[in-house]
Amino acid sequence: MYAETGSQWNVAELEDAAHRHLISPAEEMSKLGTSGGRPLFTSADGIYIRDSHGRTLIDGPGGMWCTQVGYNSQPIADAIAAQALRICYNSPWYSINGPASELARRIAAFAPGDLDHVFFTTGGSSAVDSALRFMQFYNNVLGRPDKKAIICRIDGYHGSTHLTAACSGRAGNRPNFDLALDNVSFISAPNVFRRPRGMSEEAFLDMLVAEFEERVETLGPENVGAFLAEPLLASGGILIPPKGYHRRILEICRRHDILYISDEVVTGFGRCGHWFASEEVFDIVPDIITFAKGVTSGYVPLGGFVISDAVLARVSGENARGSFYTNGYTYSGHPVSCAAALANIDIIEEKGLLAHVREIAPYFQEEIRKLGELPLIGDARGTGLVACVECVTDPDAEEATDFDKEVALRVDRYCYEGGLIVRPIGSMCVLSPALIITREQIDDMMAILRGSIVRVQDELKAEGRW
Amino acid sequence: MYAETGSQWNVAELEDAAHRHLISPAEEMSKLGTSGGRPLFTSADGIYIRDSHGRTLIDGPGGMWCTQVGYNSQPIADAIAAQALRICYNSPWYSINGPASELARRIAAFAPGDLDHVFFTTGGSSAVDSALRFMQFYNNVLGRPDKKAIICRIDGYHGSTHLTAACSGRAGNRPNFDLALDNVSFISAPNVFRRPRGMSEEAFLDMLVAEFEERVETLGPENVGAFLAEPLLASGGILIPPKGYHRRILEICRRHDILYISDEVVTGFGRCGHWFASEEVFDIVPDIITFAKGVTSGYVPLGGFVISDAVLARVSGENARGSFYTNGYTYSGHPVSCAAALANIDIIEEKGLLAHVREIAPYFQEEIRKLGELPLIGDARGTGLVACVECVTDPDAEEATDFDKEVALRVDRYCYEGGLIVRPIGSMCVLSPALIITREQIDDMMAILRGSIVRVQDELKAEGRW
Repeated sequence: MYAETGSQWNVAELEDAAHRHLISPAEEMSKLGTSGGRPLFTSADGIYIRDSHGRTLIDGPGGMWCTQVGYNSQPIADAIAAQALRICYNSPWYSINGPASELARRIAAFAPGDLDHVFFTTGGSSAVDSALRFMQFYNNVLGRPDKKAIICRIDGYHGSTHLTAACSGRAGNRPNFDLALDNVSFISAPNVFRRPRGMSEEAFLDMLVAEFEERVETLGPENVGAFLAEPLLASGGILIPPKGYHRRILEICRRHDILYISDEVVTGFGRCGHWFASEEVFDIVPDIITFAKGVTSGYVPLGGFVISDAVLARVSGENARGSFYTNGYTYSGHPVSCAAALANIDIIEEKGLLAHVREIAPYFQEEIRKLGELPLIGDARGTGLVACVECVTDPDAEEATDFDKEVALRVDRYCYEGGLIVRPIGSMCVLSPALIITREQIDDMMAILRGSIVRVQDELKAEGRW
Repeated sequence: MYAETGSQWNVAELEDAAHRHLISPAEEMSKLGTSGGRPLFTSADGIYIRDSHGRTLIDGPGGMWCTQVGYNSQPIADAIAAQALRICYNSPWYSINGPASELARRIAAFAPGDLDHVFFTTGGSSAVDSALRFMQFYNNVLGRPDKKAIICRIDGYHGSTHLTAACSGRAGNRPNFDLALDNVSFISAPNVFRRPRGMSEEAFLDMLVAEFEERVETLGPENVGAFLAEPLLASGGILIPPKGYHRRILEICRRHDILYISDEVVTGFGRCGHWFASEEVFDIVPDIITFAKGVTSGYVPLGGFVISDAVLARVSGENARGSFYTNGYTYSGHPVSCAAALANIDIIEEKGLLAHVREIAPYFQEEIRKLGELPLIGDARGTGLVACVECVTDPDAEEATDFDKEVALRVDRYCYEGGLIVRPIGSMCVLSPALIITREQIDDMMAILRGSIVRVQDELKAEGRW
C-alpha cells in the first residue's frame, strides 16, 4: 500500500518516472523527458517544504497562493480520513451530503451582502467557468440572449479551461492555444507602477474607469453580461488597483445590469485578513465571488462560487420558466473536499488567523517596501500577506525587459539556494506565504530575498552588465 | 473540529442549510430553496449507501460511475491522510511530487500502445477540456491552425465546462446554456436499439461509418482536429456501438491525421474488466485517453489524459519550436489525489478486481437481459459492469416518449423504496455498481429492480394507462 511504502520510494526512480511519463503545466516542450529543472518536493511542514536533496525551504508563494494554515495539519488529515470512511462520495446530480451543506452555510455567512448561495466545483478554473456559464444561463432565462460579452483585464488570470483561459489576459499563457474570444473584451490592467509617465494616480484611476465605461458603450450595454476581475491581479504581478477602482466600476455595472464577478480564488480565505477581500478590503459587494485554493489550504481540490440572492431570484422560483441549471461536475460538493474545507475553516477560526494576518501584514508590507529601496528593485508592493518586488534594470523602459526577467530568475535561483522559494513571475519575485507565518519567519524570508538581490546587484556590476 | 463532531450533526439542520445555501448540479430552478427531492446521504460501506432516514440502499450507479472499490476503504483513507501529512500540496507549475510521478508511471503502463505520458487535471470535464486544448496546441505548433474541428456524437457526454458541454450532445443539458459550437460537429449516436426499422446491425454500422467519413469530407480533412468519443455512451444511455465501429472510425482518422480521443472517464479503471476499455474491449489504440472517476474510486477529485508518444514527439524536443504547454491547473497532479489513486489501484490489483469483473460480468449481463423479457422493458443492454433497462410503453414510437420517462421515474421511486438506487436517465434505469459486487448482491439488485418494474406494469394496467 502506498501509505506504508511511499516514504521509502527511491527518489531517483520517482524523478525518472516524472521525466518519462509526466506532462506538467507549463511544460517546456523542447525539454519534455528531461527534468526541466523542476524540483521534486517530498515533505512539508508549516511554512516549510523540503526537496529531494533534503533542502528545507520557506515556501514563499505558499504552494500556489493556497497553503493558508500551513503544511502538515493533523486536524485536516484527520477530517479527510474520517470523511472518506463516513461517506467518500455521493452524486451531487441527485443527492446532497452533510459537508457540502454545512460548508455552503458557512461560506454564505462569510460572504458579503446577500451572497447566500454556493455552487461547488473542483478548483478555480472550473469555478470561474461555471460562474460565466451562470451568466449565460441567467441572461438566456431573462430573455436577453445577446447580453453575454465578458469584460476583463490584460494581465488578469482566471483559469485554464477553454473559456477561462480566453478571459486571462497574461500574454505568456496565450501562444499556441485557441481562445474563445468572440465575446471577451480586454481593458487595461490597473497597473499603478506602469501607469503613463507623469500621470497622477487619481488621473490614472479616472482613465481606467473611463476606459471601462467607454468599452461598455462601444459594445452596447445590452450586449455586456459580466465584468470579471480579481480584486488584485495576482499572477499578473500583484497589481493593486487605485483606491475606489472597484467601487466605481461596480456602479457602472449596476447602471447597465452587468454582473460583477469578483474572482477571489487568490484573495479568499484570509489572504488579505478577511474571509473575502471584496467588501472589507476593496469596498464592493459584487454579484458573484469565485473561490478555490485557500478554501481547503490546498489539501484537497475544491472551488466554487457564491452568488447574490437578488440575482438568483430573477431566475428561480416563479421566474424560473421551467429551467434547470444543468451545469455541474461529478465532484461538485465532494464530501471529502468539503470536509477538508470545514476543518481548514475551523483552524483559521480557532487560531485567529484572520486577526493574525491583519496584525502581521503591516510588518510584512513594511519589510517588502524596504527591499524596494534596493537599486535593482523598481517597485515593491502588496497588501495583506501577498506582495512582490519587481526587478527593473532600466528605469526608462516602459515595461519589463527580457534582461529584467533574466535578473529575476537569477534572484529566484539564489533564493532557492538560500532556502526560500519565490517563484518568479516575469520580472517579479512573489511572496504569499502561509497565514501562520510569524514575524521571525518574515525576517528570515526577507533576509534571504535581500541577500539574493544584493548578490545579483553585485554580480551584474562585476559583469559590467548593469 | 469537523472530524469529531460531524457525525453528531443534526440532519434537519443540514437539510435546511442545503435548501438555503446550496445550488446543486441540475438544480431545478423553480424549486431552489426546497429539497427538490434530493436525499441527504450520510454514510456508506461497500456497495451500500445510507440516507438521512436511515434507509440503506444498494448504490446501483456506483455514485456516478465511480465507486470501483466500494465505500469505506480503510487503505484509501489511510493513504490520503498519510499523504496530507507528508506533503499535501506542491505547485505543479514549477515542481513535481512523488505520487503524481508514480501514478503517471503506472497509468502509462496500463494504457495501450505508446500512450506513455500523463497530464493530470481535477476531473473528467477538465480532462476532456485539456485534451481538446492539447489538440489545438498540437495543430498550432504543427503550423495548421485551421485543423481544429471536433467531431462528436449526439447523446455523448464529455463534461460541463464551456467547451466540453459544447461537445456533449445530450439534449437535456443544453437549454439556456451557450455552447462553443463553432468548431463542433455532431454525428449520430451508435444507438443499435433505436436504429432505423428493418435495418440490420451491419448496415447500421456501415451507415454510421459512412456518416463520419462524409462529415470529414464535408468539413475538409484539413479542418478536422479530433474525433471525441466514449467507447460506450454512458449518460447517453449505455449505448454500445456495433462491433468494429471504433476500429473503422479510427482508420479514417489515421488516414486524415485526425486525433482520436477516447473518453474513458466512465469505462476506465475496471468498469469493463480492464484498466482501459479502448484496446481490450473495443479493439482500438487511440491517440489520447481521458480518465477520471474510477481512478480514485471517487474518494478525491482527480482526472487527466494519457497520450501517445508518437503524437507528442511531433510537438516536443526538436519539433517544439520553443513552445510551452501552458495549460494546467493549481491542482494538476495533486499529491493527495494521486495518493488516493495509487491506493485505489493497489486495491484493484490486490483484490483481483479486473479478473473479478471479467468473471462476474457475464452473469450480471445475463440477469439484466432477463429483465428485458418483461413487457415494459424495450431493451436491456450493457457490457462489463455497466448496464441499463429501457422502459418502452409504445413499441411503435421511434424514440422515448414522455410517458416512458414518467414510467422510468416510477420504477426508480419503487427501487428506492425497495433499497436500490437506479438513477433514471430519461426512460432508462442504469446500473454501474462498485466492482466488488458479489453474485448474491447482483441477485438482490435484480430482484428489487424486477419487483419494481412488475409493480409499475401492474399499476399501469390497473390505471388503464397501458
